Amino acid sequence: MSSNVILTKNQYGKAENRVVRVTRDTDRHEIIDLNVTSQLRGDFAGAHLQGDNGHVVATDTQKNTIFAFARDHIDSPEQLLLKLANHFTSEFDWVTGGRWQAEQYGWSRIDDNDHCFYRSAPEIRTAVLVRDGDKDALISGFYDLTVMKTTQSGFAGFPRDQYTTLAETDDRIMATDISTRWRYNSTDVDFNASYDSIKATIMTAFTDHYSRALQETLYKMAQQVLAKHSEVDEIKFSCPNKHHFLSDLSFCDLDNPGEVFYAADRPYGLIEATFTREGAQSADEAWVGIAGFC
Amino acid sequence: MSSNVILTKNQYGKAENRVVRVTRDTDRHEIIDLNVTSQLRGDFAGAHLQGDNGHVVATDTQKNTIFAFARDHIDSPEQLLLKLANHFTSEFDWVTGGRWQAEQYGWSRIDDNDHCFYRSAPEIRTAVLVRDGDKDALISGFYDLTVMKTTQSGFAGFPRDQYTTLAETDDRIMATDISTRWRYNSTDVDFNASYDSIKATIMTAFTDHYSRALQETLYKMAQQVLAKHSEVDEIKFSCPNKHHFLSDLSFCDLDNPGEVFYAADRPYGLIEATFTREGAQSADEAWVGIAGFC
Amino acid sequence: MSSNVILTKNQYGKAENRVVRVTRDTDRHEIIDLNVTSQLRGDFAGAHLQGDNGHVVATDTQKNTIFAFARDHIDSPEQLLLKLANHFTSEFDWVTGGRWQAEQYGWSRIDDNDHCFYRSAPEIRTAVLVRDGDKDALISGFYDLTVMKTTQSGFAGFPRDQYTTLAETDDRIMATDISTRWRYNSTDVDFNASYDSIKATIMTAFTDHYSRALQETLYKMAQQVLAKHSEVDEIKFSCPNKHHFLSDLSFCDLDNPGEVFYAADRPYGLIEATFTREGAQSADEAWVGIAGFC
Amino acid sequence: MSSNVILTKNQYGKAENRVVRVTRDTDRHEIIDLNVTSQLRGDFAGAHLQGDNGHVVATDTQKNTIFAFARDHIDSPEQLLLKLANHFTSEFDWVTGGRWQAEQYGWSRIDDNDHCFYRSAPEIRTAVLVRDGDKDALISGFYDLTVMKTTQSGFAGFPRDQYTTLAETDDRIMATDISTRWRYNSTDVDFNASYDSIKATIMTAFTDHYSRALQETLYKMAQQVLAKHSEVDEIKFSCPNKHHFLSDLSFCDLDNPGEVFYAADRPYGLIEATFTREGAQSADEAWVGIAGFC
Repeated sequence: MSSNVILTKNQYGKAENRVVRVTRDTDRHEIIDLNVTSQLRGDFAGAHLQGDNGHVVATDTQKNTIFAFARDHIDSPEQLLLKLANHFTSEFDWVTGGRWQAEQYGWSRIDDNDHCFYRSAPEIRTAVLVRDGDKDALISGFYDLTVMKTTQSGFAGFPRDQYTTLAETDDRIMATDISTRWRYNSTDVDFNASYDSIKATIMTAFTDHYSRALQETLYKMAQQVLAKHSEVDEIKFSCPNKHHFLSDLSFCDLDNPGEVFYAADRPYGLIEATFTREGAQSADEAWVGIAGFC
Repeated sequence: MSSNVILTKNQYGKAENRVVRVTRDTDRHEIIDLNVTSQLRGDFAGAHLQGDNGHVVATDTQKNTIFAFARDHIDSPEQLLLKLANHFTSEFDWVTGGRWQAEQYGWSRIDDNDHCFYRSAPEIRTAVLVRDGDKDALISGFYDLTVMKTTQSGFAGFPRDQYTTLAETDDRIMATDISTRWRYNSTDVDFNASYDSIKATIMTAFTDHYSRALQETLYKMAQQVLAKHSEVDEIKFSCPNKHHFLSDLSFCDLDNPGEVFYAADRPYGLIEATFTREGAQSADEAWVGIAGFC
Repeated sequence: MSSNVILTKNQYGKAENRVVRVTRDTDRHEIIDLNVTSQLRGDFAGAHLQGDNGHVVATDTQKNTIFAFARDHIDSPEQLLLKLANHFTSEFDWVTGGRWQAEQYGWSRIDDNDHCFYRSAPEIRTAVLVRDGDKDALISGFYDLTVMKTTQSGFAGFPRDQYTTLAETDDRIMATDISTRWRYNSTDVDFNASYDSIKATIMTAFTDHYSRALQETLYKMAQQVLAKHSEVDEIKFSCPNKHHFLSDLSFCDLDNPGEVFYAADRPYGLIEATFTREGAQSADEAWVGIAGFC
Repeated sequence: MSSNVILTKNQYGKAENRVVRVTRDTDRHEIIDLNVTSQLRGDFAGAHLQGDNGHVVATDTQKNTIFAFARDHIDSPEQLLLKLANHFTSEFDWVTGGRWQAEQYGWSRIDDNDHCFYRSAPEIRTAVLVRDGDKDALISGFYDLTVMKTTQSGFAGFPRDQYTTLAETDDRIMATDISTRWRYNSTDVDFNASYDSIKATIMTAFTDHYSRALQETLYKMAQQVLAKHSEVDEIKFSCPNKHHFLSDLSFCDLDNPGEVFYAADRPYGLIEATFTREGAQSADEAWVGIAGFC
């Protein structure tokens, strides 16, 4: 057995650059609030194996570049990531790709004021761009959108073995924190409009059916997103089943017809699924490193 | 010096009971989502000093009581806390008071659906009831409401010593996470209406002036709340000054006229203040144990 | 009813200054790793009520002062806080007191190396100094020290009402995160030696008895600390009862003689108690603002 | 473009089952404290596409199985995961694989007591088993081991462009939270002994050289692990460069010869690298879903 060690996949950069961009061309200001990470891939073996930093574009330089690029107008996180990728892969010969990502926090105006805002979005918007040579994968999404159905959900017909104690039910609370990512098949997209529409589609799809399991609901969400959004080839969900247990109040002679629940923390169900447009190219490599998506 | 040890202030109970109450009298469901803590005060010296649990109403019993009481309609967190306090102090002779608190998470309907909701409120609503014999202090509030002014804020005229390096400014970003608690002078209040109105008053007061320091803004918020809400005697704020530093882009020959900011994590300013209605009785003891309020 | 608003208690400053001090007088380096907060009290009404910042020692100046003072040797967090308090209350007439606090993170050497360390302490050490005119309260402590007894703990003899379902037990797991604060009656203390000894005393006291309730165990800890440490007048504990429920495996015909447990998150018991040396002066005001201690 | 939707990769199960196992064969108890997740893969299309739960082994059943299996002696997290995988893939025809993972929290005895423990390990141990048909990938590791070098670290020789402002240095603080995962080439391993030895090897490797960049240090760690541990074929690191900035005290005429540092939160460097034994088989698919490893 060889004891030779080979450097295989690697990337490095500056993580979580908290950039707030105010547009003040008029008195009615606009803001975009981002958390940007830049990581480069390419020929960095010298740094690891010989301590030669000749190729190591400093993570501090990557940070400076992010803030300098923010000086231009930022349309969307996706557009900023593409611009960063283009810069680093063209400026430095040995940078053949990388991974750039952003989170966006959503704000609304207070009382329609021109320059006063509050952080209103319950969910955090995400964007990841993975470039490998001339191949780009652009994956957007969001997380922490907590939703609940107080009825029209059940779970029955599952197999039983010696470890099964769960009763079947045709009426329960179903709650989850929606965490989803979708992969665009183009970079020529109105990313903000697409985001708003996909989010609305997912939320509506949560409401429109009796759910026989969270699995079925995820499929219905995916189906509607892919039907309406030809710019999307693939969508993944990673959703906890946040258990709400009916409180047994018989100890004090009270009934409980689906009204009082204990919201449990752990353990929780965890349902993960990928839905792909038939005939679309896969891009499995680009998903590596995104937690909680199989 | 005596080595005798005296048990002085103490309380105990069950913390963070996650109760979700669904009202399903009609097909249009309503939900209330709470995190309830019950802690009793009174004569519990036996448990500490002699290991005699004869007075120790089990924390499990306190939990059961919370869920049983949730079976009735819950109007507001404040109303539930009052009911719990009344129960424990009347049921058990040696329970002379206690501390009951709740957090409430705010939900909205998805697409005006009857039974599908998403967690929409950016802030977490709080209520604390401290009872000591026949004296009640009822303190409500909220936290984690993040707000930002992109202009109409400055900081100047402050003293300078050998450790002062900060430049004066008449145009900066001011951002904070509003954390506030107000004390009612009555328990005969429409708590939900009062909450909504106080929150709206605070948000509007954030917008309506040029702020010479976060201190001034807190005062303006307090002033308007106490002016409009005769049911409130006292209001406290504990607000970080979430620094947004102007990014110096001169290294690459870019100007930055108040447009690109770095949002810092730590350290942060921290401004805490109490505003009291003239002539109102104080209730300092009731505030002990609430983090971050002087 | 008056609508006049009075500014009552208030304080402000710079929170969470993350200072790492390396002593490199010899090749064998020493480190102290602190998170320091400075808040001033005194005459700051002008800033709130008139927007006059003439008294507002900038929070940035407070930060600079902390880092400048760290240039001197730091013996202990307590000693640094005293030095900061002395500076601010003597430098500025209108500063009549304040609240200074620090957290300390504990490191150990890797392989007894001179300059390589790992963060080893499970607990976080705390120190708070509250100065009000010529009165100081100095409160030290720690939190997040998680301990467990796998036997020698029970809970029985508690009262039963219609909401009581808990069975008595004479053998259970008892686990808690110890969070404690003690108040010194002097500032002439070897704070590091005192800290180490008090922590060891508390841990040993956790082991040396059959616990009839967490309340009894807290008392035994307090008793031993106050007996051994004449420099301490008061000690408080705020300790969750971290429930470990015996897993009922009868569904698959397995017994479970105290061997398999489910560690629950919420709700949890919460036991808080104050133990005072007989005859000691109280200092209740100084405890305001410390979360979770009654 | 097809609007047909295909279910591709998916898995589901019960996450974060908090199992504490006490061995009490003698008065000297032993504990193992785990957080176990079970997720199944196989033919689950019916649940997603038709709402047919006939194949959906309930997540509750997976939970029950974990607790039942904990009734037997648990040698190591890895051994428990293998047992769970064997059970689910043999018991249910349509379960062709899955992903099982555990975190382990490390405890030590208080004063060498037989049944009293404190949570002592700074790091959290991890194990992941990914089974796909007859192919197993077993990946162990740990995270949150924070280490610091106060000297013997520099960064120089890096490229400079118009966005570069960082100065070269030959003496700085280098600090990181070590997060690492290694892949075993066998399941016939003394996992606990291997874990202890690999952790010690990594810590020692952190100390034994002048580090020209975190990249070089990661390589040295990997090299020593792979040299000493023939049972390991691959090791990955994902390590923040936790910046400690030298405090510039010139504003008050103080020097600062590498003694006072500001520990920054964000942004931070982020260095990720994979090191593979020459000739070893790759198992890239098994790494999908582990956050922060490229």
